[in-house]
Amino acid sequence: MLMGHQTAEQIPTYDDIYAAQQRIKGQIRTTPVLFEPQFNAALACELWLKCENLQRTGAFKFRGASNAIARLEETGRKGEVATHSSGNHGAALALAASVHKRRARIVMPDNSVPTKIEAVQRYGGEVIFCAPTQQQREKGLADLVAEGCIPIPPYDHADIICGQGTAVIELAKQCPELEVLIAPVGGGGLISGSAIAAKALLPGIEVMGAEPEGAADTALSLEQGKRVEQFTPDTIADGLRAMVGVLNFEIIRKHVGGVITVSEAGIIDAMALVWRHFRMLIEPSSATVIAAVMTQPELFAGRRVGTIISGGNIDLERLPFKP
Amino acid sequence: MLMGHQTAEQIPTYDDIYAAQQRIKGQIRTTPVLFEPQFNAALACELWLKCENLQRTGAFKFRGASNAIARLEETGRKGEVATHSSGNHGAALALAASVHKRRARIVMPDNSVPTKIEAVQRYGGEVIFCAPTQQQREKGLADLVAEGCIPIPPYDHADIICGQGTAVIELAKQCPELEVLIAPVGGGGLISGSAIAAKALLPGIEVMGAEPEGAADTALSLEQGKRVEQFTPDTIADGLRAMVGVLNFEIIRKHVGGVITVSEAGIIDAMALVWRHFRMLIEPSSATVIAAVMTQPELFAGRRVGTIISGGNIDLERLPFKP
Repeated sequence: MLMGHQTAEQIPTYDDIYAAQQRIKGQIRTTPVLFEPQFNAALACELWLKCENLQRTGAFKFRGASNAIARLEETGRKGEVATHSSGNHGAALALAASVHKRRARIVMPDNSVPTKIEAVQRYGGEVIFCAPTQQQREKGLADLVAEGCIPIPPYDHADIICGQGTAVIELAKQCPELEVLIAPVGGGGLISGSAIAAKALLPGIEVMGAEPEGAADTALSLEQGKRVEQFTPDTIADGLRAMVGVLNFEIIRKHVGGVITVSEAGIIDAMALVWRHFRMLIEPSSATVIAAVMTQPELFAGRRVGTIISGGNIDLERLPFKP
Repeated sequence: MLMGHQTAEQIPTYDDIYAAQQRIKGQIRTTPVLFEPQFNAALACELWLKCENLQRTGAFKFRGASNAIARLEETGRKGEVATHSSGNHGAALALAASVHKRRARIVMPDNSVPTKIEAVQRYGGEVIFCAPTQQQREKGLADLVAEGCIPIPPYDHADIICGQGTAVIELAKQCPELEVLIAPVGGGGLISGSAIAAKALLPGIEVMGAEPEGAADTALSLEQGKRVEQFTPDTIADGLRAMVGVLNFEIIRKHVGGVITVSEAGIIDAMALVWRHFRMLIEPSSATVIAAVMTQPELFAGRRVGTIISGGNIDLERLPFKP
């Protein structure tokens, strides 16, 4: 049996992420990394796009959810699982649970992207709607836990962080010479796992976050030296509206060099640029990493930059850019 | 120096395709192959999607164009290149030429998808519009040749066929146990190169074509035992409106087991299904291969099927399906 870290609240190590990869490798896809000289010329650096938009369920979240479910299986803990999610973690948990014939119940804000609601349901998840606030999401989940469901939090949990970090185990093998890594920051599951893996596997790597100005609670928290507890998000990047988690913030403080904030217009321009150069529709949350390069080109000029394109679950009927 | 086949009109061998791969491997992307158990369950067979929609320029055509230009370079033939194209070959030729600082002039039907026109221009190609008929396309190109341009035909040429076939060299390595391969049939460049490579590398493989009912000139030609010379295409699959080439038809007759025709509704349903399961927008031409499986499921039930997703250059403002 694989050994894991001891508690959900403890900062995981690289070995924990490696163990997660061994645990989930039969379920997840090794996602491709794309490189395009013309795109690089436009952005004046060498960019590698780690395409988690092509992960199963259309987002990196399937890694964390798969690891969390696999841990329950390992420890013999039976029962329904539940979470709150604006969509990607919910869809991921629904599919990860269905692989092991578990029922999954997902609390979703009632302004979730229709595509994401449809996906949760298609993967067999049961959707419970709530008002679109952090408080109502958490209350919805607490109610399910009171009914006996096992909560699988979207980011503030070592199993989730370890699962998300497996993307960087792949990336380090695919692009061993990266100098910088940029990941989006929402709740912080992706960037915290990625940072731990990157620091272990890519000597000298600098890890940066990207956050919408309208959901810049992590940038603000770093500035204030402690995690802010009140922030009302307002951004098109629906996957990044959650506030950074406690464990996640601790890891970010330790391993992440900084968080670049990007405007809504910058996010939309980045989506359009990726569509033109790669013929991929990426969700606004993903586009923040490209927007970060466009916003602060001087930080990246001439460098080898890895970017995690976190997901591709967008509402085709409400594309925010003119193609 | 790499050896190539002797004339453009001669049927290439697998060795010629291998030589093409060596010639272009520094320019092209090794495209990913995606596999999704839930998608397979929906279609009752095991499908591997060779994602040429993620090739540079958004389509497999960049392989053939790169090979054709590389051959000109090898033989020291200088000068501008020209072609006629509904878009993908034009964009591919523009980029392939620009890599070697050659000027490229592209005759495009005036009803081409705007995204494709924009792409040709972005890659530095010069667009010359014509009426949307085979005759007018050929006349436009003949005029450019009269001015001294080197014609790079879109499919009916050994260099192009060899370039396109390189996709299957990759696929055979990525999925060595395929039992069937399906490729779309327009002019026949992709399927003819693919069939030669598949027959050489995948023992016992069956190669099938997919064609829209409204552009089923190849199916009709096979039925009549000779290439039909008159056919007015009417299909949403803009990349498949061209008539099958002479050399291409000869290869198809020899190596392709059959061509499955698919309806317009079938194409649109397949696009929607791929979007839902893979979060990729594929162009209607590409969707024909999935539509073929949906149309004749009994031919594929339980089998390991490779499909070439030929391109992803679609007009986002005119999506034909409800997401």
